[in-house]
Amino acid sequence: METSCQRILEESLTISRNDVVRSDIKLGLDAVRYTKLEVNERGELGLSYNATLQLKVNTVGIGKISEGENFNSAALPYIFPSRYVPSDRMRAVANDLFANVSGKFAQALAIEDWLFKNIYYQVGISNEQSWALDTLETRSGVCRDFAHLGIAFCRALSIPARYVTVYAYGLYPQDFHAVFEVFVDGIWYLMDGTRKAPLNGMVSIARGRDAADAAVATLFGNVMGQSMMVQSEIATDEDEIFMPITREMLMRDGNALYLG
Amino acid sequence: METSCQRILEESLTISRNDVVRSDIKLGLDAVRYTKLEVNERGELGLSYNATLQLKVNTVGIGKISEGENFNSAALPYIFPSRYVPSDRMRAVANDLFANVSGKFAQALAIEDWLFKNIYYQVGISNEQSWALDTLETRSGVCRDFAHLGIAFCRALSIPARYVTVYAYGLYPQDFHAVFEVFVDGIWYLMDGTRKAPLNGMVSIARGRDAADAAVATLFGNVMGQSMMVQSEIATDEDEIFMPITREMLMRDGNALYLG
Amino acid sequence: METSCQRILEESLTISRNDVVRSDIKLGLDAVRYTKLEVNERGELGLSYNATLQLKVNTVGIGKISEGENFNSAALPYIFPSRYVPSDRMRAVANDLFANVSGKFAQALAIEDWLFKNIYYQVGISNEQSWALDTLETRSGVCRDFAHLGIAFCRALSIPARYVTVYAYGLYPQDFHAVFEVFVDGIWYLMDGTRKAPLNGMVSIARGRDAADAAVATLFGNVMGQSMMVQSEIATDEDEIFMPITREMLMRDGNALYLG
Amino acid sequence: METSCQRILEESLTISRNDVVRSDIKLGLDAVRYTKLEVNERGELGLSYNATLQLKVNTVGIGKISEGENFNSAALPYIFPSRYVPSDRMRAVANDLFANVSGKFAQALAIEDWLFKNIYYQVGISNEQSWALDTLETRSGVCRDFAHLGIAFCRALSIPARYVTVYAYGLYPQDFHAVFEVFVDGIWYLMDGTRKAPLNGMVSIARGRDAADAAVATLFGNVMGQSMMVQSEIATDEDEIFMPITREMLMRDGNALYLG
Repeated sequence: METSCQRILEESLTISRNDVVRSDIKLGLDAVRYTKLEVNERGELGLSYNATLQLKVNTVGIGKISEGENFNSAALPYIFPSRYVPSDRMRAVANDLFANVSGKFAQALAIEDWLFKNIYYQVGISNEQSWALDTLETRSGVCRDFAHLGIAFCRALSIPARYVTVYAYGLYPQDFHAVFEVFVDGIWYLMDGTRKAPLNGMVSIARGRDAADAAVATLFGNVMGQSMMVQSEIATDEDEIFMPITREMLMRDGNALYLG
Repeated sequence: METSCQRILEESLTISRNDVVRSDIKLGLDAVRYTKLEVNERGELGLSYNATLQLKVNTVGIGKISEGENFNSAALPYIFPSRYVPSDRMRAVANDLFANVSGKFAQALAIEDWLFKNIYYQVGISNEQSWALDTLETRSGVCRDFAHLGIAFCRALSIPARYVTVYAYGLYPQDFHAVFEVFVDGIWYLMDGTRKAPLNGMVSIARGRDAADAAVATLFGNVMGQSMMVQSEIATDEDEIFMPITREMLMRDGNALYLG
Repeated sequence: METSCQRILEESLTISRNDVVRSDIKLGLDAVRYTKLEVNERGELGLSYNATLQLKVNTVGIGKISEGENFNSAALPYIFPSRYVPSDRMRAVANDLFANVSGKFAQALAIEDWLFKNIYYQVGISNEQSWALDTLETRSGVCRDFAHLGIAFCRALSIPARYVTVYAYGLYPQDFHAVFEVFVDGIWYLMDGTRKAPLNGMVSIARGRDAADAAVATLFGNVMGQSMMVQSEIATDEDEIFMPITREMLMRDGNALYLG
Repeated sequence: METSCQRILEESLTISRNDVVRSDIKLGLDAVRYTKLEVNERGELGLSYNATLQLKVNTVGIGKISEGENFNSAALPYIFPSRYVPSDRMRAVANDLFANVSGKFAQALAIEDWLFKNIYYQVGISNEQSWALDTLETRSGVCRDFAHLGIAFCRALSIPARYVTVYAYGLYPQDFHAVFEVFVDGIWYLMDGTRKAPLNGMVSIARGRDAADAAVATLFGNVMGQSMMVQSEIATDEDEIFMPITREMLMRDGNALYLG
């Protein structure tokens, strides 16, 4: 997707079959672009997406300022609880941990820091139905869980926060990554409690209230994912960053697929 | 709000104080209109809203067709789980109860019917944090709970469904009401598992994924609601319905208020 | 009940009807005495219980030593999770809060203190299905909730802990009270995170793993409680305490009642 | 353990090290026998248990009558909710499914049958923190989950029910198994919703309110299980059954172990 901080210089989507009906649609609060692929015949489907993006890196603050917005109303929907972010049930805990920090931005930074220090990155503890209360309980999870808990704390403190699925340069092993953005004084700041990749090498794929809104791919019918591969490089040119991305997916059967 | 099925013929909002800064904003997926009221001085604030709407009543089907849409993509966000609608955790139950019904619209009708027959309308069992799994457990709740459970079953069966806050003519005692809409073959159909008021006397105030998106009023600061009064009448003129509405609220203190 | 710390000097149970079949039974791990009352005819049933107990007050430590036990095995069942005490899900939080305190008894004292400082005593937030995770979430509740959360933290740290329903001298308003006991070095120590009544004026009525085991009265059939009144006084005689207790209950209909 | 239906003819526990302090203790409501093994030195510990039991097979009813009891009070603790059996939250569902069946024993049979037909035996969906509400939601689980859900339905209908860990002859692959017993008219009847092994080839190892009470082995310290092997054969002699059992465990490190 294009935002005020990232511009697509070139991109291509190569599809292994020629009986695929393709349409681009915009979904959700942020009009995230999805590509819908429909097939009528069962069988294997290979996808290869390549793009080069130009990222604007904002060096103010520790976070990347991903988008400037002066209208509070655009951020307001991100203050409400959502499927994996029951912030309405986390006010007591959020206040206990962060109410003594003064200033919204300082609170958000304290939240990111708390995540890094208190949540253990561990695969296998959480699943796709885990929500922020689970991560608070187990103190462990993957990037998605870190993001949900961070968003929950923010919203519980009346800071709008949203979920962002990204390509992350420097993430090892290479994979999609999930982070969050907080809205303070008209600006969305990027945060990542896992600290697994540099904030200025992240390209947004999709965003929304939580993972339910920002899936990398949504499958309908009996689509089965077979393999997925993501790669990104980085080419800096003074204060601008160019980031080529490669993404390959192989699917079997099913009849519709939405790609973020 | 105006939709393809309801037109505002006239309206007025009377505010008891003249130091209120008023602005109208549109929020969320459906661009629901909210009125933001800000005050600087503490004290009492009285509101009185009067409107007359013209409703188009569609007599096809048992539900009111509230809006025609041919693009599946507009409905797609309403297939995902949300705060009070964890449809991703209700597939087994939904399939157990409704998989034997054939056809999406017939399934939605079966769901509405099941709600009416199996959920007991009772005040005091649920609270503002209750979600569809609670209502499934207790088999009791208020209009909001009926709507959430109906939406959850629909989404679990891949039927887009959304939450609608309405003025309901004929509801006793007079109050706001919550119902749901399901999207089948390009049309949103109104459903109400409580069957407490006629479907053709409902005026939409706000809608969204669930109650988190479609609050009647959102208060910031220390606003305290003191009283609320809603009244609606109906004046039919052949096959069109005119519906005058009166709504009064009295609030104390606080500094911002969003009115749906 | 009689324990190594409390002896019943005299007691009487007056029953308002003479068609009641009464039998005394011992239930559960601690052989708590219950009185079973069965009636065949519907109608009103009044109960009045009066007793005088002699309490041994152990002044070592801040807690009353309610019972000396040298066998770890008697305490072992109180280390496992129970209905309202999901200690198996609270290890991360318990370790986060109390792992830095050294010594089991010091940890238990730190837990009691944390409850007093962090949980707000409030009627109406919790209900009879609330468990320790709810209290951890809302940071508020009544004596039962304080006890469950305290027990949960203890068990999560491998300290056996049990729930005790008591008559509490000095509690205002006069009512039954719930506290907890922890087992350290062969001794059960009484703890009360609410600090609403002196520990040395408590008479145990029933105890068990949690409130499911230690109900004041369990009703079968359509018994309806109508009123309940509890009173206790205290008469000290040097280092021994004599405590007269009055308890009155009025019930309607139903056919069986177990009184702790 | 010995019960009125099973007698230990001979048994032996072979321990691979001679620095182990062994003591036998009885725990919990049913005085289940546990063997406590303590070691002071870290290292590997191998256990081999062999026994031959004589089972009394009661052919009345479809369940094995494992124990005759005429005192309701002994069964009463098994009517209350416990950690993995929140029966207090399942009354609405239990009534919806089974209230139309008349008679307590018929209800219990209907429950066992419902489990067999509606719950899918699947490894990996549940974990050691799963409780009956999870299994009701996912409609899948292992023997432990079947037992917990069965017990929950029974208790919700006021039928005392308990959890039993057994050696099951004929179970494939050979492993421990979990079933449940219901108390009707003074008799405990064995039930198994998985129907994976014959009811008359089961030897009780431990029993209690739920899995929290009836663990096969409870480890303290840093004990790590390395392997476990269970084998049972059956030797019938007219209407009596003799059942030789072999059980081998290999553990590393840690300092205490309770074996059921």
